[in-house]
Amino acid sequence: MASSDIDALTQALARLPGLGPRSARRAVLHLLKRREATLVPLLKALERVSEKLAVCDVCGNVDTSDPCSICTDPRRDARMLCVVEEVSDLWALDRARLFPGAYHVLGGRLSALEGVRPEDLTVDKLVARVGRGGIDEVVLAMNATLEGQTTAHYLVDRLEKFPIRITQLAHGLPVGGELDYLDEGTLAQALRARRPVG
Amino acid sequence: MASSDIDALTQALARLPGLGPRSARRAVLHLLKRREATLVPLLKALERVSEKLAVCDVCGNVDTSDPCSICTDPRRDARMLCVVEEVSDLWALDRARLFPGAYHVLGGRLSALEGVRPEDLTVDKLVARVGRGGIDEVVLAMNATLEGQTTAHYLVDRLEKFPIRITQLAHGLPVGGELDYLDEGTLAQALRARRPVG
Repeated sequence: MASSDIDALTQALARLPGLGPRSARRAVLHLLKRREATLVPLLKALERVSEKLAVCDVCGNVDTSDPCSICTDPRRDARMLCVVEEVSDLWALDRARLFPGAYHVLGGRLSALEGVRPEDLTVDKLVARVGRGGIDEVVLAMNATLEGQTTAHYLVDRLEKFPIRITQLAHGLPVGGELDYLDEGTLAQALRARRPVG
Repeated sequence: MASSDIDALTQALARLPGLGPRSARRAVLHLLKRREATLVPLLKALERVSEKLAVCDVCGNVDTSDPCSICTDPRRDARMLCVVEEVSDLWALDRARLFPGAYHVLGGRLSALEGVRPEDLTVDKLVARVGRGGIDEVVLAMNATLEGQTTAHYLVDRLEKFPIRITQLAHGLPVGGELDYLDEGTLAQALRARRPVG
């Protein structure tokens, strides 16, 4: 059927998350049939990103410049620092454009099960960054999982010696969440964190 | 968040079938984090395919050579010709390696609704190819849809003047198909085409 070149492309695409062998074949056919509209732009974008790919030495973001476009953005409020587990979390938060400050990517979460210790993450780098001053608030934006919350508690221990505000994302009902469909953990959290109204 | 280069890559990937904006972002992160293992092979495969991409002038297959690797394969039995609607059908059949002959891609199916007429497909090319001789059997492998079957009937009309065998893929129960779950059309077809056993 297809040549070895096309097979190689199919296999490279099938390795992406969200694409299996079947959808990779469909994607390849799509690329081949619409070369100018799909294959050429994808190729050019990959070339540019591949050339410039860099991990930001300041915050750990993956970008095409180092320091990254967030760290060098003058409109950002450098006095606020949001700590996240992974680059994907940074992107998710920043997509919503709700956080006006800078970020710090830990590179994971503490996990006894997986043997991830503080020295496996960029915790020391975070502490040093906060220690250099100029930061008023550190927002801990760990996942609402046991490991995420363990990591947040550990970071509070490491950061509370500094004259800064340490905050954490609120936990509770998600927007549009119906009580009937939510897990007990979320309901318990929402009840514990209940706030006065009216 | 991400630079315009990364945005461009995300958008190029999101245009592929099976990937939306969300999965494209996950794919991009995957590519960025594992540059050598994923991004570089994908880039190289795309480059090679983009350079060599060709539509086979004989059969209509999309490949990296013209004539394609199937048409030039000496182990193929050129006396058997399998006619399919689309390149994806050719790939699906050939993946199973069940058909030992050559192919002919129509480029679609006759459709009154979508205004697809015989001259919009490669029907004349097929008739000319069969007319040149050397072909013993034409296997019609249209989809088991109304339009696919209309197309097959039309092709029979056009080809029956030649001294060849014209066959069609069998219709009936799919392997593993349970009667209880099959549609009436398939059951009716399977009943009509029942065969003596024992």
